[in-house]
Amino acid sequence: MNLANSHKPRVVILGGGFAGVYAAMELESQLANRDDFEITLVNKENYFVFQPMLPEVISGSIGILDTVSPIRRLLPKTRLIVRDVEALDLQQKNITLSQGFRPRPYSLQYDYLVFALGNVTDFRGMVGLPEHALPFKNLADAIFLRNHVIHVLEEAGIESDPELRQQLLTFVIAGGGFSGVEVCAELNDFVRHAAKLYRGIEQTDIRVVLLHSSERILDREVSKELGLYAEELLYKRGVEIRLKTRLRSASSDAAILTTDERIPTKTLVSTVPSSPHPLIDGLDIPKDKGKIKCNGFLEVESLDGVWAVGDCALIPNPSGEGFCPPTAQYAIREGTTAARNIVVSVRGGQKKQFQFKGLGKMGSLGYRSAVAELFDYFRFSGFLAWFLWRTIYLWKLPGLDRKIKVGLAWALDLLIPPELVQLKLGTAQGVAQAHFEPGEVVFRQGDLGDSLYILLRGEAEVVREDHGEQKVIAHLQPGEFFGEMALLNQKTRWATIRCIKPTDVLTVKKGDFTALVANLPDMRQTFENVMAKRMGKNK
Amino acid sequence: MNLANSHKPRVVILGGGFAGVYAAMELESQLANRDDFEITLVNKENYFVFQPMLPEVISGSIGILDTVSPIRRLLPKTRLIVRDVEALDLQQKNITLSQGFRPRPYSLQYDYLVFALGNVTDFRGMVGLPEHALPFKNLADAIFLRNHVIHVLEEAGIESDPELRQQLLTFVIAGGGFSGVEVCAELNDFVRHAAKLYRGIEQTDIRVVLLHSSERILDREVSKELGLYAEELLYKRGVEIRLKTRLRSASSDAAILTTDERIPTKTLVSTVPSSPHPLIDGLDIPKDKGKIKCNGFLEVESLDGVWAVGDCALIPNPSGEGFCPPTAQYAIREGTTAARNIVVSVRGGQKKQFQFKGLGKMGSLGYRSAVAELFDYFRFSGFLAWFLWRTIYLWKLPGLDRKIKVGLAWALDLLIPPELVQLKLGTAQGVAQAHFEPGEVVFRQGDLGDSLYILLRGEAEVVREDHGEQKVIAHLQPGEFFGEMALLNQKTRWATIRCIKPTDVLTVKKGDFTALVANLPDMRQTFENVMAKRMGKNK
Repeated sequence: MNLANSHKPRVVILGGGFAGVYAAMELESQLANRDDFEITLVNKENYFVFQPMLPEVISGSIGILDTVSPIRRLLPKTRLIVRDVEALDLQQKNITLSQGFRPRPYSLQYDYLVFALGNVTDFRGMVGLPEHALPFKNLADAIFLRNHVIHVLEEAGIESDPELRQQLLTFVIAGGGFSGVEVCAELNDFVRHAAKLYRGIEQTDIRVVLLHSSERILDREVSKELGLYAEELLYKRGVEIRLKTRLRSASSDAAILTTDERIPTKTLVSTVPSSPHPLIDGLDIPKDKGKIKCNGFLEVESLDGVWAVGDCALIPNPSGEGFCPPTAQYAIREGTTAARNIVVSVRGGQKKQFQFKGLGKMGSLGYRSAVAELFDYFRFSGFLAWFLWRTIYLWKLPGLDRKIKVGLAWALDLLIPPELVQLKLGTAQGVAQAHFEPGEVVFRQGDLGDSLYILLRGEAEVVREDHGEQKVIAHLQPGEFFGEMALLNQKTRWATIRCIKPTDVLTVKKGDFTALVANLPDMRQTFENVMAKRMGKNK
Repeated sequence: MNLANSHKPRVVILGGGFAGVYAAMELESQLANRDDFEITLVNKENYFVFQPMLPEVISGSIGILDTVSPIRRLLPKTRLIVRDVEALDLQQKNITLSQGFRPRPYSLQYDYLVFALGNVTDFRGMVGLPEHALPFKNLADAIFLRNHVIHVLEEAGIESDPELRQQLLTFVIAGGGFSGVEVCAELNDFVRHAAKLYRGIEQTDIRVVLLHSSERILDREVSKELGLYAEELLYKRGVEIRLKTRLRSASSDAAILTTDERIPTKTLVSTVPSSPHPLIDGLDIPKDKGKIKCNGFLEVESLDGVWAVGDCALIPNPSGEGFCPPTAQYAIREGTTAARNIVVSVRGGQKKQFQFKGLGKMGSLGYRSAVAELFDYFRFSGFLAWFLWRTIYLWKLPGLDRKIKVGLAWALDLLIPPELVQLKLGTAQGVAQAHFEPGEVVFRQGDLGDSLYILLRGEAEVVREDHGEQKVIAHLQPGEFFGEMALLNQKTRWATIRCIKPTDVLTVKKGDFTALVANLPDMRQTFENVMAKRMGKNK
C-alpha cells in the first residue's frame, strides 16, 4: 500500500471478541521487533468476554467478573477506544464513533481496517420477543438473567395464587445448540439448588423447558451418540425437552410455541437469533446472509486494506467444504492470520492463506458433566468430559491472574453453596412496549398501578366487576390510552383491561409522563381535554 | 398482649440492615427453645450489606458480592419478603407492600412490629445535587461509582481537549466523616493505581478533592491526633482537603462550593445528607429530627408492641448523655435487645433496658492504613490499625463461607493488580433532569445529539457560529423545548445552547419521545404545530 502521508500505518480493529483481541495480540507481538505501525481497537466495552464460560455466571460458580478480562491489560501496546461505531466511510477511510461525556463526534482515520464485530441478538420481527424474551449474548445479559431468576424465586416464595406461582417457577429456553443447552443446564442446576432455601418451593414445582427445532439437541454440534447422552442427562435432572418445536411468539405472560401450546412463564430465554451487526448491515460491501465475504487471505474482496474475521465474516473453509463455523477456535486463528497478513502488507512479503482444521467441540452440561469430541476420533461424556472442559478452558483463559481467580472460584464452588444475591442495578426504562395475546390481562381491577398505557395495535376491553358480576364497559382501539387514573394518585386499578386481539401497548411510568405533560403547556391542555372527556364517560 | 385470634404472635421486622438482621437472628435463637411466634422480615433487597466494607468495592480489593450476604442464608427460620413498604396502618396493624411481577398489593398483619429502616440519601432541595451528585449508601451506589470512575478514565485517555480532560480527571467527595474519608481514600488509591494502565494519563493530571464543613476531618469520630494523622496521610497520597467548606450546588459540569469556588468535574460524590426513611416521614408517631423516639426498652412510646432500632430510632444513650450514635455496633446490640424484649412480651417476664457502651471507632484510609480508637484508651494509626480493621471486620462478617471468600480476596489483592472491568448494566433513564449554572453549555454546535430538552426553570440563549462569528439568535424561556432537530434525524446540533441564569432542563431520549408523540394523535398534532412554527423561524 502506498501511503501518501508520512505517518506510521494505522491499523484499526473494530470489535473486541476472540477474533479482534487475538488479531491485536498478534500485531503487538510483531510490533515488538520493529515499531512501524500503530494499533487501535474499538470496542463498546473495555473488557473481553470469555464467551464459553458465560453460562456459569447464571449459577454463580464463578464470580461475575471472572469471565471477562480488561482489554487494556491483555493489549498493553494497543490504543483502546471504548465507544460504539456510529458510521464508517470506506472511501475516506474514516470512522465516526459515538459520543462520550460530551456529545462530540470522534473521528478515526485508518490505513488498514479489520472487521471483527461478531453478531448481535436481534428479536425484531418476532412477535413479543423484543419485549419479553431475554437474550444471552454478553455479560450484562448473563447478570440480568441471574438476577431475574432470583427475583422470580423471591416472588414465588411468597405467592399464594397457584397459577401465578406455577408461572413464576416455569423457565423456558429456546434453542438447543451449545449456547441454549449450556444456559438450560446451568439455569436448571441453579434454580433447583437455590429453591431449597425458599420455604414452600418444592422441586416438583419447578419446570425447565428446552425448545429445539430439529429432532435432537446439539444435532449440528456433536455426534448422535453424544447428543442423545446430553438429552438423557438433562432429562434426568428434570428438564423437559420439546423437539421439532420452535417459539412462535411471546407475551408478557407466556411463551407460545409453533405447536400452538402456550407455556405460562415469566422467564423466556432465547439463544436463537444471531443477526449481523447493524453497522455491517448498512455498508455497501460484498455480503452473503449478512456476513462479509472474504477470500482465503481473509481480505474483503474489492476493498484495499480491509479484512474481516470471526463471526461477522464469511470465510471459505480451508477444508474446501462450505465456510468456517462461528466458533472461538476459528475466530482465534482467523484473527492471528489476518494480523500476520496485515504485517506482510506493511513490511512486504507473501500473504498466507487461512489454514485451520477444528480441534473438536465441547459443551458443558452443568453440574460436573459435559460432552466433548476431539480430533474427530475421541468422544467423551460425563465427568471426564467436564474435567477436560474445565482444564482446557482454564488453560485457554488469557492472563495468569485470571487463571488463578477462576481456578480458586471453581475450587470454592465445590465447597461453598451458591450465592443468592439479587443485584438491582438498572433503573426500569421510562417507556417500554409489551405484547399480550387474546385473553391475557394487562392489569386487573384492584391491582396497584403507577403506569399509563397507550394501545398501539390490537383491541382490548375494559371490564368492571361489581358485586361479583363482570361487565364490559368499553372497548379500546389503537391510539387510545388507559390507566390514566394512576396520574390522579388513585393507587389501585378501577377496572380490568383484557385483550381481545393480539395487542401491543406502550407503557409510560407516571413520573415520566407527568414530567412531560406538566412542562409542555400545549400537551397539558390536550391531555386535560382527553381526561375530562374520559372522566365524564366513566361516571 | 392479649391476642384476640388464636394464631401464633407474628413479629414483623421492617429493614434488613445491621439492626433488623440482628434482631431476627436473636429471635431465631430464642425460637429454638419454643416454637411460639413467627418471624417475618421485609427488606427491599434479598441481601444484607456489610456497610463498613462497601468502600472497598470501589477499588475492587474485594469482589462485588463479597460485601453482602443473602439474608435467607443468615436467617433460615425467618420468612423474608423482598418488597418495598408502601403503606402502614398502625391502628389496623397492617402493612401494604409494593407490587411484584403482577401489580397486586400484598398485605401483612403483625402483632409486634420492629422499625429497622435505617436512613436514606436524599438530595432534594439541594440545587443540582439530585441530578449530578452520586450517593454512596448501598451496593448499587458502590458499583455505579466504580463503573463511573472507569468510564471517566476511558474517556480521559482518548480526550484531546485539555479542559475536558482535566474535568474528567477531577474527583470531588463531599463529607469528611468516616464514610466520606473512606470513599475518598479508596477512590484516590484506585484512580491513581488504575491510571497507570492508560496511556497519556499522568499522576499529576489527577485531582481528588475532599470537602469538609468543620476545621478537621473525622472531627466527630476520632481524637484530634488521629484526625490530623488521617489528613496528613491523605495529603501525602495526593488528596486536596478543603476544610470549613461545603458543597453549595452542583451542575452537569462542576461542583460549586460555599466559597464560590467552582471545581469542574464529572464525578461528585456526596456522603452528607442522611434523611429519614420516607415511610417514617409520613407516619404520625413520636419523632425528633425525623427519627422515631424510643424509651430505654426500645419501645416506641404511646404505641403498643412497636419497637424501633438502628439509625431510624432515637434512643437515649445508656451513658445518660444524649442519644445512641448511628453506628453498626450500636445497631447490632439494639436489634438484639429489642428481640429479647419482644420475646419477653410474648412469653412473659421482665423487659430489660438497652445497655451498651461503644467499643471504639475504626476507619480505613485505603492502602494498608487506618485509624482506630478502642475503649477510649487505645489509639492506633497506620498499618497496625489497618491490620486490626481487617481482622475485626473479617471476624464480624457473618457466615463462614463469606469469611473464606473475603479472606481469599484480600490475600489475592496483595498479589494481583486491580480489575478494570466497566460493567454497563442499567439502561439510561428515559426522562431525566439536568442543572446548569450561568455560562455553562447544554450542547454545542456540531455536537452529536439524540435527545430533546425542555427548559423548566431559568433562561438560555441559542448561539449560532458562522465563519468564526458568534451570534445570539434566540432566547429560551421556561416551557420552551429545544434540540428537536434530533427528531428529524439531524445527527449534529445546529446551534449552541448556553445558559444565562441557573437553569434546569428535562431531557427526553428521542426514542421515548417519538414513541409517545407518534401514538397519541392529539399530542402529535400539537407537537407538529410547534415544530412547524420553529422551523419557519429558524430558516
